[in-house]
Amino acid sequence: MILTEPIINSITWVNSLALKLQPQLLATTEAENAPIVLTGVLLSLVVIYLASKIGGELSRMIDLPPVLGELVAGVVVGASALHLVVFPESGAVASDSVIMTILQFINNLTPEAVTSIFQSQSEAVSILAELGVIILLFEIGLESDLKELQKVGYQATIVACVGVAVPFAAGTVGLITIFHAPVIPAIFAGAALTATSIGITSKVLSELGQLKSREGQIIVGAAVIDDILGIIVLAVVASLAKTGEVDVFNVIYLIVSATVFLIGSILLGKYFNQSFVAIANKLQTRGNLIIPAFVFAFFMAFLGNAIHLEAILGAFAAGLVLDETDKRKELDEQVKPIADILVPVFFVTVGAKVDLGVLNPLVPENREGLIIATFLIVVAIIGKVVTGWAVFGQAGINRLAVGFGMIPRGEVGLVFAGIGSASGVLDKPLQAAIIIMVILTTFLAPPLLRFAFKQSGEGQELEQADLLG
Amino acid sequence: MILTEPIINSITWVNSLALKLQPQLLATTEAENAPIVLTGVLLSLVVIYLASKIGGELSRMIDLPPVLGELVAGVVVGASALHLVVFPESGAVASDSVIMTILQFINNLTPEAVTSIFQSQSEAVSILAELGVIILLFEIGLESDLKELQKVGYQATIVACVGVAVPFAAGTVGLITIFHAPVIPAIFAGAALTATSIGITSKVLSELGQLKSREGQIIVGAAVIDDILGIIVLAVVASLAKTGEVDVFNVIYLIVSATVFLIGSILLGKYFNQSFVAIANKLQTRGNLIIPAFVFAFFMAFLGNAIHLEAILGAFAAGLVLDETDKRKELDEQVKPIADILVPVFFVTVGAKVDLGVLNPLVPENREGLIIATFLIVVAIIGKVVTGWAVFGQAGINRLAVGFGMIPRGEVGLVFAGIGSASGVLDKPLQAAIIIMVILTTFLAPPLLRFAFKQSGEGQELEQADLLG
Repeated sequence: MILTEPIINSITWVNSLALKLQPQLLATTEAENAPIVLTGVLLSLVVIYLASKIGGELSRMIDLPPVLGELVAGVVVGASALHLVVFPESGAVASDSVIMTILQFINNLTPEAVTSIFQSQSEAVSILAELGVIILLFEIGLESDLKELQKVGYQATIVACVGVAVPFAAGTVGLITIFHAPVIPAIFAGAALTATSIGITSKVLSELGQLKSREGQIIVGAAVIDDILGIIVLAVVASLAKTGEVDVFNVIYLIVSATVFLIGSILLGKYFNQSFVAIANKLQTRGNLIIPAFVFAFFMAFLGNAIHLEAILGAFAAGLVLDETDKRKELDEQVKPIADILVPVFFVTVGAKVDLGVLNPLVPENREGLIIATFLIVVAIIGKVVTGWAVFGQAGINRLAVGFGMIPRGEVGLVFAGIGSASGVLDKPLQAAIIIMVILTTFLAPPLLRFAFKQSGEGQELEQADLLG
Repeated sequence: MILTEPIINSITWVNSLALKLQPQLLATTEAENAPIVLTGVLLSLVVIYLASKIGGELSRMIDLPPVLGELVAGVVVGASALHLVVFPESGAVASDSVIMTILQFINNLTPEAVTSIFQSQSEAVSILAELGVIILLFEIGLESDLKELQKVGYQATIVACVGVAVPFAAGTVGLITIFHAPVIPAIFAGAALTATSIGITSKVLSELGQLKSREGQIIVGAAVIDDILGIIVLAVVASLAKTGEVDVFNVIYLIVSATVFLIGSILLGKYFNQSFVAIANKLQTRGNLIIPAFVFAFFMAFLGNAIHLEAILGAFAAGLVLDETDKRKELDEQVKPIADILVPVFFVTVGAKVDLGVLNPLVPENREGLIIATFLIVVAIIGKVVTGWAVFGQAGINRLAVGFGMIPRGEVGLVFAGIGSASGVLDKPLQAAIIIMVILTTFLAPPLLRFAFKQSGEGQELEQADLLG
């Protein structure tokens, strides 16, 4: 019957011309705009990928970690400068977005349609970014070798705990007492100071030929534990932010549940591992390994969210579990290209969502934000440098090198900034301050480490040995 | 200053409890609901992946192509049966979705919040499915060897053209004259009958040991050309649907622009190829190959959309171009896992969006839809069988086998159904009829081909030779 209706009724997908002639059709915008939303997402991804590669490569050229370049490139294409990738939740409207302006020009859209398309497109890019951070944590989990970790032992654990506790306590207490910040944002910002970046740290150490030195081993071990602690802290803090109240019972419940969730999944994982390998071996169609792995990772991420912790905690746990299977290498290989196309979306959008304008020193109102940012950066550095003095029973250890090695924040710090801004816990100056903290600590670590190892003289010899060997 | 405000102001992300206590906060739903939207997307992906693997594996066990199983599994989890994966554009509301009911139970949501989350989640899954079909066509492009195609020559080209023209003309004219269907949906449904599935056809032929036979070579060559013609037809037809008018000038313009776009990108691609390889070789950070490839593919897809053709035409052209580089193999390898996790989202959602209930023969009103479906299936089969008689100058060729070999539709047929339903051009019975057509032609092809080759006796010998060799 529907087939016998006149042509015009069967076409609900009208182009802009028809839209202007028949404004009553506006109600069906959603379906009509779907292809334009896709166009917007495609264009955003092209910009994000170009930015991430240009930023990453430039960063590598001047001997800095690529992730830093991706972040800075995000700042450049985002709300702070080019306005190519902007988001409504950071206060942008459709006309602020260069991509939306292009789409409006191509498709001759009404302002209402543009607003709706901007909203949908931004949501889609945000979901891709969130899938990116889930896969990033899954990959970090896959790469964290639990057995290797057990060997590094007490030294690394103590360094890690001190390196989490000191910046967290100093940051949170300082923000509350000196700057009269509300409790939840202060806790969130304090927590963002905790996690050392495994990736950045180990890369700098290997470039210095110090990865296998005593100091290097302690630093890398501590960075791994740090990451785990950091993710637990994030799960707890983000959950506090959701309920909006800090009561002791709740905090204890959250710490216990996050720890139980992580340790429980690792223990249960030992049984699951075998079934996982058996299933992957039995499947004969394409994606026989990656699809079961993603079912597991996404289900754990869902579970993490469902029990009011964080999706990334679940993905990280899934990675730790699957790391123990003998499919590990094959899985690693297959996750890599997926991470390559989704993780940059996360880093670039984290940068893009920050408006560095709020820290422009020429504007008098920004002064408080600037002072807070300076405070956070100082705490971030000192809080990690002191960890060198937490090492015990190791005569002649280069304490300064250990401390400096713990300084670079990175992925997990950015995860804090991203989740904090998405949840609205962090206001703009605080969010910008955290991003600046991540950038500066990562910039500072390589020269500081070089200085510390040169002081002891030991570094140069090893470095030379490395170069000669 | 914002830091000195009371705690409650700094928490815009309230949980369900706070939401009930403070209904005025409803305005900020978007930001608050973001993590729940993510939870919904994760749960949908888990369901989609499980369905795709179970369907794909079962299908393979009974010797049918996995993609068919994924499609049927999509029908099972979708609007026709389990209601796990449903979409607002096919008329579902939030309470129809089992996943939304689960989320509502976990998070204790208001009905308004559920509606908004359902909308956002469905949009996100749809975008993932659209990225899936873009990557599918990019991959098909990467796998279509242009040089190989030139060898197959005239025979395959004629078979392909007849196999596109006959079902298209018979389907469209039949729908308009016999069933008095409006012109645009009739053209769209006719066009959906055109494309033979390369994947399905070549798999069945190789199982029969006939891939390298004269018939097999013609079938596969024709299927490749068929796919290219099919994508051009789709671009033209979808564009007609957008403007809503069939005028001769417009049709000619579209055919010319689609052909020029495809051939032009292949020709220009020869120059671009070398720069692409040079760039990929120069980049040193992760994703040095896949990110430039995706920038190109997504930009071409954007361009395809921007000039009012289809995104998939651009992605296909990008695949054809990059297929000619010496990075082809490495790229193939890296695109595979990405396709593995995104393409099933497309196939399962195409199945999920169909409501087979509209063809339930027990409901009297469905009779017309059923008759149309039967008509389409008959045209789909006869329109391809006749192609066997288009072969000339090949004495003793098994014409029936060539005709039967062209029967299975598949990916491209589903792309038609997906785009037709997203654009609202196809009403529900027509959309369901196309899906049934794809399923039935794919089911029928293997036994028919076996029968045809047994008749000639040639097949069995070759098959045995294959098994013995």
